[in-house]
Amino acid sequence: MGNTFGHLFRVTTFGESHGGAVGVIIDGCPPLLEISPEEIQVELDRRRPGQSKITTPRKESDTCEILSGMFEGKTLGTPIAIMVRNQDTRPQDYEEMSVTYRPSHADATYDAKYGIRNWQGGGRSSARETIGRVAAGAIAKKILHQVAGVEIVGYVKQIKDLEANIDPHTVTLAQVESNIVRCPNAESAEAMIKLIEQVTREKDSIGGVVECVARNVPKGLGSPVFDKLEADLAKGVMSLPASKGFEIGSGFAGTLLTGSQHNDEFYTDAAGNIRTTTNRSGGIQGGIANGEDIVIRVAFKPTATIGKEQKTVNREGAETTLAAKGRHDPCVLPRAVPMVEAMVALVLCDHLLRDRGQCRVFTP
Amino acid sequence: MGNTFGHLFRVTTFGESHGGAVGVIIDGCPPLLEISPEEIQVELDRRRPGQSKITTPRKESDTCEILSGMFEGKTLGTPIAIMVRNQDTRPQDYEEMSVTYRPSHADATYDAKYGIRNWQGGGRSSARETIGRVAAGAIAKKILHQVAGVEIVGYVKQIKDLEANIDPHTVTLAQVESNIVRCPNAESAEAMIKLIEQVTREKDSIGGVVECVARNVPKGLGSPVFDKLEADLAKGVMSLPASKGFEIGSGFAGTLLTGSQHNDEFYTDAAGNIRTTTNRSGGIQGGIANGEDIVIRVAFKPTATIGKEQKTVNREGAETTLAAKGRHDPCVLPRAVPMVEAMVALVLCDHLLRDRGQCRVFTP
Amino acid sequence: MGNTFGHLFRVTTFGESHGGAVGVIIDGCPPLLEISPEEIQVELDRRRPGQSKITTPRKESDTCEILSGMFEGKTLGTPIAIMVRNQDTRPQDYEEMSVTYRPSHADATYDAKYGIRNWQGGGRSSARETIGRVAAGAIAKKILHQVAGVEIVGYVKQIKDLEANIDPHTVTLAQVESNIVRCPNAESAEAMIKLIEQVTREKDSIGGVVECVARNVPKGLGSPVFDKLEADLAKGVMSLPASKGFEIGSGFAGTLLTGSQHNDEFYTDAAGNIRTTTNRSGGIQGGIANGEDIVIRVAFKPTATIGKEQKTVNREGAETTLAAKGRHDPCVLPRAVPMVEAMVALVLCDHLLRDRGQCRVFTP
Amino acid sequence: MGNTFGHLFRVTTFGESHGGAVGVIIDGCPPLLEISPEEIQVELDRRRPGQSKITTPRKESDTCEILSGMFEGKTLGTPIAIMVRNQDTRPQDYEEMSVTYRPSHADATYDAKYGIRNWQGGGRSSARETIGRVAAGAIAKKILHQVAGVEIVGYVKQIKDLEANIDPHTVTLAQVESNIVRCPNAESAEAMIKLIEQVTREKDSIGGVVECVARNVPKGLGSPVFDKLEADLAKGVMSLPASKGFEIGSGFAGTLLTGSQHNDEFYTDAAGNIRTTTNRSGGIQGGIANGEDIVIRVAFKPTATIGKEQKTVNREGAETTLAAKGRHDPCVLPRAVPMVEAMVALVLCDHLLRDRGQCRVFTP
Repeated sequence: MGNTFGHLFRVTTFGESHGGAVGVIIDGCPPLLEISPEEIQVELDRRRPGQSKITTPRKESDTCEILSGMFEGKTLGTPIAIMVRNQDTRPQDYEEMSVTYRPSHADATYDAKYGIRNWQGGGRSSARETIGRVAAGAIAKKILHQVAGVEIVGYVKQIKDLEANIDPHTVTLAQVESNIVRCPNAESAEAMIKLIEQVTREKDSIGGVVECVARNVPKGLGSPVFDKLEADLAKGVMSLPASKGFEIGSGFAGTLLTGSQHNDEFYTDAAGNIRTTTNRSGGIQGGIANGEDIVIRVAFKPTATIGKEQKTVNREGAETTLAAKGRHDPCVLPRAVPMVEAMVALVLCDHLLRDRGQCRVFTP
Repeated sequence: MGNTFGHLFRVTTFGESHGGAVGVIIDGCPPLLEISPEEIQVELDRRRPGQSKITTPRKESDTCEILSGMFEGKTLGTPIAIMVRNQDTRPQDYEEMSVTYRPSHADATYDAKYGIRNWQGGGRSSARETIGRVAAGAIAKKILHQVAGVEIVGYVKQIKDLEANIDPHTVTLAQVESNIVRCPNAESAEAMIKLIEQVTREKDSIGGVVECVARNVPKGLGSPVFDKLEADLAKGVMSLPASKGFEIGSGFAGTLLTGSQHNDEFYTDAAGNIRTTTNRSGGIQGGIANGEDIVIRVAFKPTATIGKEQKTVNREGAETTLAAKGRHDPCVLPRAVPMVEAMVALVLCDHLLRDRGQCRVFTP
Repeated sequence: MGNTFGHLFRVTTFGESHGGAVGVIIDGCPPLLEISPEEIQVELDRRRPGQSKITTPRKESDTCEILSGMFEGKTLGTPIAIMVRNQDTRPQDYEEMSVTYRPSHADATYDAKYGIRNWQGGGRSSARETIGRVAAGAIAKKILHQVAGVEIVGYVKQIKDLEANIDPHTVTLAQVESNIVRCPNAESAEAMIKLIEQVTREKDSIGGVVECVARNVPKGLGSPVFDKLEADLAKGVMSLPASKGFEIGSGFAGTLLTGSQHNDEFYTDAAGNIRTTTNRSGGIQGGIANGEDIVIRVAFKPTATIGKEQKTVNREGAETTLAAKGRHDPCVLPRAVPMVEAMVALVLCDHLLRDRGQCRVFTP
Repeated sequence: MGNTFGHLFRVTTFGESHGGAVGVIIDGCPPLLEISPEEIQVELDRRRPGQSKITTPRKESDTCEILSGMFEGKTLGTPIAIMVRNQDTRPQDYEEMSVTYRPSHADATYDAKYGIRNWQGGGRSSARETIGRVAAGAIAKKILHQVAGVEIVGYVKQIKDLEANIDPHTVTLAQVESNIVRCPNAESAEAMIKLIEQVTREKDSIGGVVECVARNVPKGLGSPVFDKLEADLAKGVMSLPASKGFEIGSGFAGTLLTGSQHNDEFYTDAAGNIRTTTNRSGGIQGGIANGEDIVIRVAFKPTATIGKEQKTVNREGAETTLAAKGRHDPCVLPRAVPMVEAMVALVLCDHLLRDRGQCRVFTP
């Protein structure tokens, strides 16, 4: 249970980091969407390990194979199965973990829940699981763009205490991809890269904040009550490995304002559209998109795997120490950007289809 | 769509603030749980309007009627339907809102989505909808307590810039209920109450942060991947009206630490249990409870409804102004506490049943 | 669990036969549908007890109250809660059943599953539960009719060994409602009524077959694989009390033909539509509607409650006998007709919305 | 949508007959189940084409590869992905079908729904899709057997007008597998094989009835209302290709009896168990298993693909004729047996886990 996401555009992922393969089934994709494996691979390449000097050196091409659901370059409307074989696995790096629990990892909790665990890596809790999400997200992005011109842009907003100044309303994918840390502020990016390199030398790790904007989201997407758009976005990104916090619009800082300072007043723009002068709501009011930019932030903790020696216990509870030998990211943020974008795309695409299904029957 | 929450312990709410009634159906409740209407009413009374001088003066007894699913004081295992009639409705207070959009409310987005809206109050976006959640939460709490001794305690951690010092590991319900703002630090509580009263006089509103702890959660609850325990908690509380942010454990502040500072090292306690020396994980690792206290924080924005005049537009887009006449809370925090607790209880109870269903078959 | 039906047009029922009330929540109803309580009541009246001399004399007006989801005669798009209070309950009729198991009823299985049971009637297994289905079905029917002109007509095809000759392609609701047994063949209806009256005198009961046709179902409704239209129809009607069998199109009789006899050959009609010359498929091919009439048949067993003395056991397993005193239908068929229609409507309406959600994005 | 089945033990299939692969993801499988690929392959071999002279000569070894969810011979509790590559595909056999609709196939309805179709075979409507079901069913069967000793035995009960006399309470898998038509009555089997061979020579096809029994099903499995055990069984088997009817227990024949003839009277057996003297209920009362054998029957139509020439139309509606060249089964019944068993196993396993999740909390 728990490996499926979405209600109408429904994604199910599978795979351990060191099993045969990881992948995804997308059920509910609209038929006749034109999309090529290359378009999906572009997103997977943004996520894959070994893409730069500041990511894990694990070598995985993460080449995807589409097993079903496509025909002559178009979606069939049937389940799209996408698979990526695991290649560069070194179970020997993890032998110690077969008995020793890595601090702040899922080793101990998986043992508590299942009584068994694929210890040759992170198993199902590995970030390799997100390959399926990113592949599905590529399809969701294309649907959203074709139907409504939606643009989803994620970027690194903060690494440790380095916070970048970025305008979510104008930032572009090209700016994000212009450097290896995926911070579209060049000056901040440089400082961030240096900090990551320093931390790597210290056999330590750091975290930060990814911000993501979705522009041109049609008014009306989202639902009241439990499936509020911000609730589904929160679930989506809080289900990513290493995430510890979520904000929309004004977020925690908004609690410092009064209502008269915080409310987004309405006006009518030149084109006759009802707009808000400010956007502390973050593009969503009452769980439903209001047409303004949706802006969220996600906190990622410092990578749990570090080269420094730490105190821990083994499966029997005997105390011991551990210094990671496996290859790992000193900072997950650069690779987290496409993951956050994917989850935002999955949520929005699902709500796009749901809105069409329920609400465009008697309502224009 | 979007009015159902949970997979095995499944809750569906209904009702507008000024329709005939609000309520809930709970499907999947274990049979033979002893629970009385009075136990449910206790929680509803913590949520109801008019409970103190710092909440909305709207008079609603919020008396619940159990329509089904109970017999001779015990649950039947069949759907439990609970209904609360709306009483103190004054549609005339809202007549202006039938055409004028309240800033940072859901009026405009509901119109965009549905093309129709019950304007006699907040309709479905009213916080009255949470009555059903709180009633269901009372049942979930009792199951969790009976099966595993789980304790869920929420409290006001911060109002505007007033932050209280509270130890989540020892705080009690009695301490929380000892004052009307539900802040278990007496000194902070006094200051908070004064601030709310001042803001009320200024016809303005304020927000803050609710913290909630769940103690004695069995190791192993939660799922990998999409239904991670923190992801479902995030969705649960971000689906509450006025919430803008969610954190678990170290949250956003955790991004300022290095991995060696942030990781929770393991040790074995005197009783032979594997524990962590710190709890920056917030009781969850890899989406699964590790037996430590689960600690979350939820940001609530200042109440959108204020007496001060604000700029806005009407349904036709013509610009106008609005000063709320309806009765409203100057600060939702005191009443948000039982709502947050309810959502935490719903998530944990659902995962308790799911864990028993899937994982206690061949695993002890 | 198990009290919710449908994926986008989602219905959840609640209530025991002798608890406070029975009812339904409909989540996912399109907004702006005009429908009155009277239109819903019409269907409930076709289902209610005491409607004729051949149904149970239990007196229930089954008057529905709409608690939410409607405003000024139109649906809001939010959950529609509909409730019917139980009135004519005589728990004393059932006192014996508190300890004695009624043969071919659910008393013993509910005890095995739940360890508790509302013995004051059938509890949750009572056919009163179908009130919620019929109310929801009235709304589904109206949506289907407004959007696509769909007509759903059910009728009694067979009572015991009396089978009526009826043309599903032309039969009308008026013909069905022209007599109390709901068999649109007047001659057969008369014989059936006589047979039911005779069986009633003998303190026995009988069953039969309901046939139901859905006309003007848009081509393309339904899904491949698990949610084939016939699979969802089968589940829908096999979830009705007392149903023992389901057929679509040629059904069991179709197994006696060869493929060359059974296949529905295609032709193009005068209007240019692709049609089939025969309809052994029953309007569905590969799980998807082909535009021909959908024709199904449902077998209902003879009512389990009979006045004749039967051997049975009590909760402790001691053998005893039982002769029912409660009021009951000697034949459920006349009242089963609106139930079957309701389930057909729920399935079709759900698939209508699902098809619009997924398949009308890039496909006309 | 529509490619997922089950609530706790949840199966999602993917794949077209002539795409890269077909397969399944099983989410919710209990951890620590010991099962080998060989055990799964045994069931796939019962389903695969080319297994005997009376099945399609298409050559597919249908060798399964387990991609995830297993470790050292045991289930991990994470998604089990199983894939079978398509091998013996001859798209040229289907070229004509790219434009011409095969009568009583899904070609026309897929075009109506999706506007696109993989015409190189049956695409998603091909019976190859059931590979995933059968693989998942093998796992479900093992769980059911290990936990409760459940035995599921399906067999051919009828081919065209040849009906076999078989006792569901004693029939064994070995008897079923003792001949190629899977009819455990040797005399009937011989006649059935001869009939199929004759029909093959006539370039025609025939259908029949599969009966399936599930023994030792624990009392209490199943749910009231929509997810009645018989409703889920009906949906499960009616979602199989070519099925046209479903019966449980007395089925359609039961409508010819009176209640006093039909009811199953209770008694207490020597071991003190409450039993029924007859089993017209087919092992289920009120949607819940009563511990007696569950007995169902499924009608399968004659194979739609036949070598005889038939009238049809092409995509543009122009009338033409078609005589199938593709390899196909003259009678699907022998291969339908493992499919029916698989669906029964999936339903029972899902309800087993659901019952443990909801009902074994306070109830023993």
